[in-house]
Amino acid sequence: MSDIYDRDLDQNQANHQPLTPLAFLERAATVFPDHIAVVHGSMQISYRDFYRRCRKFASVLAGRGIGRGDTVSVMLANTPAMLEAHYAVPMCGAVLHSMNTRLDAGVIAFQLDHAEAQVLITDTAFSGTISSALDLATLKPLVIDYMDPVFPQPGDRLGSDDYETLLQSGDGDFAWLMPENEWDAITVNYTSGTTGDPKGVVYHHRGACLLAQGNAITASMPKHAVYLWTLPMFHCNGWCFPWTMSAVTGTHICLREVRADAIWAALADYQVTHLCGAPVVMSTILAAPASQKRDLTKPVEFFTAAAPPPESVLSEMRDAGFNVTHLYGLTEVYGPAVVNDWHEEWNQLSAEEQAALKARQGVRYHALEELDVLDPETMKPVPRDGETLGEVMFRGNVVMKGYLKNKQATDDALAGGWFHSGDLAVVYADGYIQLKDRSKDIIISGGENISSIEIEEVLHKHPQVTAAAVVAMPDEKWGETPCAFVELVDDGSVSSADLVDWCRQHMAGFKVPRHIVFEEIVKTSTGKVQKFILRQQAEKLAREQEG
Amino acid sequence: MSDIYDRDLDQNQANHQPLTPLAFLERAATVFPDHIAVVHGSMQISYRDFYRRCRKFASVLAGRGIGRGDTVSVMLANTPAMLEAHYAVPMCGAVLHSMNTRLDAGVIAFQLDHAEAQVLITDTAFSGTISSALDLATLKPLVIDYMDPVFPQPGDRLGSDDYETLLQSGDGDFAWLMPENEWDAITVNYTSGTTGDPKGVVYHHRGACLLAQGNAITASMPKHAVYLWTLPMFHCNGWCFPWTMSAVTGTHICLREVRADAIWAALADYQVTHLCGAPVVMSTILAAPASQKRDLTKPVEFFTAAAPPPESVLSEMRDAGFNVTHLYGLTEVYGPAVVNDWHEEWNQLSAEEQAALKARQGVRYHALEELDVLDPETMKPVPRDGETLGEVMFRGNVVMKGYLKNKQATDDALAGGWFHSGDLAVVYADGYIQLKDRSKDIIISGGENISSIEIEEVLHKHPQVTAAAVVAMPDEKWGETPCAFVELVDDGSVSSADLVDWCRQHMAGFKVPRHIVFEEIVKTSTGKVQKFILRQQAEKLAREQEG
Repeated sequence: MSDIYDRDLDQNQANHQPLTPLAFLERAATVFPDHIAVVHGSMQISYRDFYRRCRKFASVLAGRGIGRGDTVSVMLANTPAMLEAHYAVPMCGAVLHSMNTRLDAGVIAFQLDHAEAQVLITDTAFSGTISSALDLATLKPLVIDYMDPVFPQPGDRLGSDDYETLLQSGDGDFAWLMPENEWDAITVNYTSGTTGDPKGVVYHHRGACLLAQGNAITASMPKHAVYLWTLPMFHCNGWCFPWTMSAVTGTHICLREVRADAIWAALADYQVTHLCGAPVVMSTILAAPASQKRDLTKPVEFFTAAAPPPESVLSEMRDAGFNVTHLYGLTEVYGPAVVNDWHEEWNQLSAEEQAALKARQGVRYHALEELDVLDPETMKPVPRDGETLGEVMFRGNVVMKGYLKNKQATDDALAGGWFHSGDLAVVYADGYIQLKDRSKDIIISGGENISSIEIEEVLHKHPQVTAAAVVAMPDEKWGETPCAFVELVDDGSVSSADLVDWCRQHMAGFKVPRHIVFEEIVKTSTGKVQKFILRQQAEKLAREQEG
Repeated sequence: MSDIYDRDLDQNQANHQPLTPLAFLERAATVFPDHIAVVHGSMQISYRDFYRRCRKFASVLAGRGIGRGDTVSVMLANTPAMLEAHYAVPMCGAVLHSMNTRLDAGVIAFQLDHAEAQVLITDTAFSGTISSALDLATLKPLVIDYMDPVFPQPGDRLGSDDYETLLQSGDGDFAWLMPENEWDAITVNYTSGTTGDPKGVVYHHRGACLLAQGNAITASMPKHAVYLWTLPMFHCNGWCFPWTMSAVTGTHICLREVRADAIWAALADYQVTHLCGAPVVMSTILAAPASQKRDLTKPVEFFTAAAPPPESVLSEMRDAGFNVTHLYGLTEVYGPAVVNDWHEEWNQLSAEEQAALKARQGVRYHALEELDVLDPETMKPVPRDGETLGEVMFRGNVVMKGYLKNKQATDDALAGGWFHSGDLAVVYADGYIQLKDRSKDIIISGGENISSIEIEEVLHKHPQVTAAAVVAMPDEKWGETPCAFVELVDDGSVSSADLVDWCRQHMAGFKVPRHIVFEEIVKTSTGKVQKFILRQQAEKLAREQEG
């Protein structure tokens, strides 16, 4: 071994620059200044103006003393201001903290204090909740009101400054700051935290740049793609698509609300090529009255996550002109880091077989170096048998820096050189993974692991069930047994015994729920079932039965 | 400013991995094992086998003691072995040194010694030259013969080992080495060096990974794209496309020789989506007899570099079903780092105007952080006036580590935090650059800068001129004057005075060549005009005239 390749071949400004997605916008604005970057209702913003607006607002922040390591919080819908925040905030060196617009005042106050927010930009639509949050918060950030010029919202002004007036006072030629190091933080996103305080997931410029490009490659996204914002940008920075679109000099179509008429109009009027969203977005699209639906000239790429798309939805979406791709990820991996990468030959299979294949979460993004399902005790990969449960683990450049001001949680999450997702999954022979449960949601009955998701899937298939959530109920004999919480269709009349029978026909006996509770299932602001509350209910039920 | 984003948020194995294009192949083979990676004549290699073959050969090299920092040289045509070398060599930690197959023995010997080659893989087609080179070289690398199984070549065997037998003895499950650091060298490519010794341009894993992805984004290359190898892979590692194709799980169509019949057959039979090549490839495609041409079902993307595509070729290519994109780069920037990024609205212009726009080199790739035309004295950008000459400079992650064992040349090339290309260009108001000359080829006459390229373009337009090269001739009064070397069509009969008249009609008087020499223009093995030899001839002519 020789060292000739290390001698006098060092890094310098000419051959090494920090990776950052901010550079994509500079390029798009320089090369295609007249191309439309952002559409919001009747408003259209060219790349020239989008870039200038971001620089103006960055200069305003810098003028208020905001710089490297500071936090700018935002409470914004999918509006131009939210897109601009993804560039303007890091352009002055600061870190963007976007909040879920459905959060309650207490959580908002916690986040503002924990992230040490110095500025808060808030859409007046949310001023009621924000006002309460500011009362609760210890810190008093500078409050900037965003008054949507296209869709004016009710709600009081909270600050003495408004976004647009401030922005217009800025310098469109502001010499924005490159990160000093690509490891510098670019954003912080708090997990919804079904238990304990929310944790602040810190992203860096390197990861944001790589995942933004990974999206373009994964989605085969061509130059000038048109992206519709059905995914909230407060979810993991809109899965990094605010930056991806600049890389391909594409067009953002903003959407304040996920309404069927607005979606169909945008799809047709702007020839949308790509959109993302939870399953509810697909339902909304499909449930639109015929008068709102429009003919699509080309297939539209739809990326969904959160839950596997059911067979009926998949075929309806195909008939409606959409190609649905299933993604999976967590806040800690910048949103999507796993893709159900589709094989052309699978299109020859039956609709049922296709849905079964599409229900799998899949394989790693290019931008993620390693994805595996490991036994968390031994850290060894589980057999590729589609049966053995293990924990989904991630390793690579699109894994978070860690949790803000929470060394213990960071060390736990990244122990052993892998990010531990807490999700339980199997791996099939072809290497595709499929989620089976959250590790804390698994039910251990008589020593057997029971996947709550498996039971929920069976219950879902019952024609009268619209929602189901299964948790462990303590049991003297078995340790735990499954307890199901079920929502029925309007005027549903199925009995507990009927559902137990249904389950018995579709799963092994030991997995059949011993108790069925009919009630509205409690969910978080982001629509996640709050299983820890259901578990408390199940424990109470168990105690009552014993007593 | 706070330091909360730097505290307890360090890099570790879970969230930081070296960037490398090798990971693309691992992914492609895992996710799409049955997809065809490589087609070579009647041979088809799946991604499963391609990956296994690379690992096998990497294990063979490792078994011979080849590891980190060692050099493996190759003298290979566009064959599967050449593609495999791009993975197998770095997979054992070594550095790939690919040589231009048209080099002479002396230069090959120099390169082998300078790169301290420990292994040489050589196609038997080149064994005559290689045999002489090995006699000249001081070092005696292990020689491995590649005998193309599909297109057997004449030529003696030089080594005791042949590639295929060795490869088959390897371990298909070899645990290949990730780079320890993404800054580690992955390849070395020698510049052709019109003056002085060739310089070894060192690439690193980070740059190769980023440019490979940059290609996919620049070329809007979808999943499963099909790439035809009309570009020699020994040119800047085939502009990094050997790695790009794995990122999109595409198919390589190998091509030993740039022959019209083989190109048209491949285009149609494999539904090629993308190819690259010098202008001569376009001429070859267009000049094919009608019997060889085939109907193309979809437009094919053709990327060209080296010389601006003339108007007639552009329109003929369009009619034949190709969309031509003009790229520019140098060995020092991994091949293409500049693209003539086309604006849709330009399609409305006249053919002549389109050709003029397409002749420009353009703007930076995403993967290059900065491109500019600077005054090399002041390092200030030239005015965006389309007239003021400056030197093209590059800065970013796809600029080489430096020149191997040549600190002085590295320091000179990367002085002031920019890579100095030596190319002279102007910048238009829209930021697109256009090359005007190599800095050493500029002619300074009476204090005025004269672009040799501008005169060559005028001469080219004369119906009887097939090639023209213009250099400076020393002149007592003016300092220098232009001297033109010209090749005419067969049976051409134009006189020196005719050509001077032609020039006078098309350019300012001070730019008109004072001397015209009719002769075959001397070129390097890669087809570059050897202007330093022409300059020597011009100097001799000047002395004779004075004398």
